[in-house]
Amino acid sequence: MASPALINVGLMGMGVVGGGVATSLLGQPNALARKIGCPISLKKVLVRDLAKHGQANLPAGVLTTNPEEILDDSDIHVVVEVMGGTEPAAGYMKQALSSGKHVVTANKEVMSKHGPELISLANRNGVNLLYEASVGGGIPIVGSLMGDLAANNVQSIRSIINGTTNYILTRMAHDGADFDQALREAQQRGYAESDPTNDVEGIDAAYKISILASLAFHKIVGPDDVFRQGISNLEPQDFRYALELGYAIKSLAIATLNDGQVKARVYPAMLPFDHMLAKVDGVYNAVEVEGDLCGKVLFHGMGAGREPTTSAVLGDVIEASRSLVSRAGPTHQDHSSNIDLTEPPTRADESGSGDSNIDDLICKYYLRLNVLDRPGVFAQIGHVLGDGEISIASVLQKDTNQSEQTAEIVITTHPAVESSVQASIQALNALEVVRDVSNVLRIEE
Amino acid sequence: MASPALINVGLMGMGVVGGGVATSLLGQPNALARKIGCPISLKKVLVRDLAKHGQANLPAGVLTTNPEEILDDSDIHVVVEVMGGTEPAAGYMKQALSSGKHVVTANKEVMSKHGPELISLANRNGVNLLYEASVGGGIPIVGSLMGDLAANNVQSIRSIINGTTNYILTRMAHDGADFDQALREAQQRGYAESDPTNDVEGIDAAYKISILASLAFHKIVGPDDVFRQGISNLEPQDFRYALELGYAIKSLAIATLNDGQVKARVYPAMLPFDHMLAKVDGVYNAVEVEGDLCGKVLFHGMGAGREPTTSAVLGDVIEASRSLVSRAGPTHQDHSSNIDLTEPPTRADESGSGDSNIDDLICKYYLRLNVLDRPGVFAQIGHVLGDGEISIASVLQKDTNQSEQTAEIVITTHPAVESSVQASIQALNALEVVRDVSNVLRIEE
Repeated sequence: MASPALINVGLMGMGVVGGGVATSLLGQPNALARKIGCPISLKKVLVRDLAKHGQANLPAGVLTTNPEEILDDSDIHVVVEVMGGTEPAAGYMKQALSSGKHVVTANKEVMSKHGPELISLANRNGVNLLYEASVGGGIPIVGSLMGDLAANNVQSIRSIINGTTNYILTRMAHDGADFDQALREAQQRGYAESDPTNDVEGIDAAYKISILASLAFHKIVGPDDVFRQGISNLEPQDFRYALELGYAIKSLAIATLNDGQVKARVYPAMLPFDHMLAKVDGVYNAVEVEGDLCGKVLFHGMGAGREPTTSAVLGDVIEASRSLVSRAGPTHQDHSSNIDLTEPPTRADESGSGDSNIDDLICKYYLRLNVLDRPGVFAQIGHVLGDGEISIASVLQKDTNQSEQTAEIVITTHPAVESSVQASIQALNALEVVRDVSNVLRIEE
Repeated sequence: MASPALINVGLMGMGVVGGGVATSLLGQPNALARKIGCPISLKKVLVRDLAKHGQANLPAGVLTTNPEEILDDSDIHVVVEVMGGTEPAAGYMKQALSSGKHVVTANKEVMSKHGPELISLANRNGVNLLYEASVGGGIPIVGSLMGDLAANNVQSIRSIINGTTNYILTRMAHDGADFDQALREAQQRGYAESDPTNDVEGIDAAYKISILASLAFHKIVGPDDVFRQGISNLEPQDFRYALELGYAIKSLAIATLNDGQVKARVYPAMLPFDHMLAKVDGVYNAVEVEGDLCGKVLFHGMGAGREPTTSAVLGDVIEASRSLVSRAGPTHQDHSSNIDLTEPPTRADESGSGDSNIDDLICKYYLRLNVLDRPGVFAQIGHVLGDGEISIASVLQKDTNQSEQTAEIVITTHPAVESSVQASIQALNALEVVRDVSNVLRIEE
């Protein structure tokens, strides 16, 4: 395959990120050509509605509503998919890869649900499928796992990869806001959508951690393999108690490998203040990778937004273009992004237990209970926890409500087994003296 | 060029890092082969003294004291240079590149002093020169600048890239140790060498920031283009005052681009506590890259040591090997690591001012003065600073020594020009009421 004299890009999608990519491709052609070693041109842009983009300052004839003008054009070498959603995006990506085009995508949903299939297709066709922008915005985490950290056996990934929830939790922690206030403010600032479900319930983070887990552990981890718990039941007093106990509360996306089994989960958790992830505030994202050689490496930066995502997409466009210039087949990216080319992909949960099951997780727990303020309550609670072999690390009694004769008790435990903790919570809820177990958070240390 | 059926590695140097690389290459051949797409073998290891490495568990015949057994062996595809020092290391690297071998190096001194020449040589010979391990140990900063962040116009790099000094400063900040105590402890723990000059005087950090600056700004920045100030004149009270003012003291290596001019410098500086770099403690390293698209991206991890450095070296070995497997010329790395292939390399200081000159730097300053405790002192100091157009932000008077009739005054300034501050310091030192200007630190915000 001869290297082209001009690299033509087809852009699918002209939303916020598409606009950023188009602006950069059109705005600094010389700088990009120098970085690539060959001129690059934006040949076609797929949009839904031509009229809507009349003011976009694109050269005449670039806009189209017909995907085939990109997918069937053999002069287009690199397809950039920034439409979002699963279909038709995934179908277009398959068609592009099948016809020998390199594909760059920012689509976390497609990569989480169909990544392994698309990666195989890219490999069979000797082209790159690059998806740096699907996780962590401008943070170079995907490329680092594929390349610089490739020598490591990765042991764990711990991350804050949803800026919306991190913004909400930061507001709750620093300003005593309650969840609804903080969410409204995030919506006003454009950090949260009008339907915030995807962010608040951890669905977005589950997509992203499944992508990172697949890449780091060379296993197939899909969104359903991720245990998920949202942040909407956190209350201001949880943050006050956390502060008193020396912890921050963060929505963490975690993937660990134990005995060849990937455990992936998204939940709000407590972190000691001196943990680097505890220091990640506002809409920032961070990913901590622990490998057998590199130790703990943390990446911190803007996880979303037009410019950071454009940085990631364009970095991949440069990468794909360089591989065209060097007349190679796929660059290094494909060897590592492949879920072990030389071994058949394994579903992480083929043992039947499923990754999303965290029953055998062992960690410390924070329990907040609303109890009747009467003698003997502690003894009953202690009895239940003792039966579950859960050892108490600390107890705070707070916020006695004299008129209702109730009090709030906060318990932290020594490391305990998740299934046992869940069983004990049921038993605690059944006690007459316990009004409810108001919240349970895992403590990551 | 056909891709080899087996990739042979020649290792030059069998110190701490060389030992780690050899152990990994010999210990997990199958995992590496899967990652590369081809088997890989350690063919030769150059050492100075065969007897010293008799116990190293290397296969028979691998050890040699003759560099030509690596450099002249056309079956060796990848040379890993981990000898350290400039010569003969640089000469061996040139010879290897000239004969078409990919070179992986951990040698910051060679890359700082001879990087541009070696990179040109690699490009002319169509091979990779990879040097992830030369800066930041296990932190994937070099590869990220070459690849994922390549779309950015980098504006600044701020970093803590010397673990020894960061350990010393952390001990001084947290435990009130003085410099000599903290240095001795660092030596006892193996973090500092018996002659600590390279670390303490910022020479090591200057090598590293010059490598990052060359890469990020596509300019030639050598070690002499870096302004350097060591940490040995910091005293415990500087840390007490910093704490009171809300700052941490860190030895920062900084490179910025202004009007096409690179300013690179290494000096102890004050950072607000909430700055991510202020939170980097002990032997950890961190690099913050600010780009026009990605915003601020921070990398944090182990900047030295056998395993982290091995992670970086082996990542590059995998990279070089993949480019052999894909039958390409040099992979993407070379386009970006090149100091602008299509333009002649420019010496950053060809304007004549020199990068190491920071006279026009503008920042806030911290001044600690030992003064005579008598009326009118403040007026005189204020007069000198006013003459230099230096505006005072805060004043603390501390530690009055009644027997000597002296006091310590700490002044922070609003942003001021370096040359003006230096002139004012001379003027202050000339005042009869000023015993000395004990310390001057720049405040980075």
